[in-house]
Amino acid sequence: MTALDASIAARLKRDDHGLVAAVAQQYDTGEVLMVGWMDDAALHQTLTTGRVTYFSRSRQELWRKGDTSGHVQRVVGVRLDCDGDAVLIAVDQTGAACHTGDRSCFDADVLLARDQG
Amino acid sequence: MTALDASIAARLKRDDHGLVAAVAQQYDTGEVLMVGWMDDAALHQTLTTGRVTYFSRSRQELWRKGDTSGHVQRVVGVRLDCDGDAVLIAVDQTGAACHTGDRSCFDADVLLARDQG
Repeated sequence: MTALDASIAARLKRDDHGLVAAVAQQYDTGEVLMVGWMDDAALHQTLTTGRVTYFSRSRQELWRKGDTSGHVQRVVGVRLDCDGDAVLIAVDQTGAACHTGDRSCFDADVLLARDQG
Repeated sequence: MTALDASIAARLKRDDHGLVAAVAQQYDTGEVLMVGWMDDAALHQTLTTGRVTYFSRSRQELWRKGDTSGHVQRVVGVRLDCDGDAVLIAVDQTGAACHTGDRSCFDADVLLARDQG
């Protein structure tokens, strides 16, 4: 496996564990599906393989989304934010993004909902 | 200032610095505007004041978005993800979300864009 492009790596502002936040958004509906974490290797694989790959903080290993569940995230686009500590991944999500079976990891726990009327 | 609701605080999985990731999304267009960070106090203010408040990692203090720039984020909704380490904030953004003047902090640095044809 080759390494992350040096010019990209130089723009990353990693946390104490070498990770940046990764927001997965369904490319056509705009739905935010989940937030995961990426180290340099995960971002490199995401950029070069067409499949979103995260770094699992609980298992401390690379985690190619969908390998176990079948709920693959195909990569449509990747953007880095202005201060280099987060990437936005436009994806095409197969099935549920959340391990609970929900489409999005943000479906279940609504802390606040304001009336827009 | 009163504290974050105990039942919400109990569901948060904070990082080593006591923070969770906060994704701000324009409520009507679905555009992801920025990723910031929140401690318990920032989340409490976001839930109770109608204005998105982050914790600034660089300044190590609460940062109510728009107080300096005028680029206020009005809170429309707040959701917590399945593992408690990220919140999704539906906002109504005044002006640019990014300090560079871009609408979104993800506008400027495109790492990958695939043809959807």
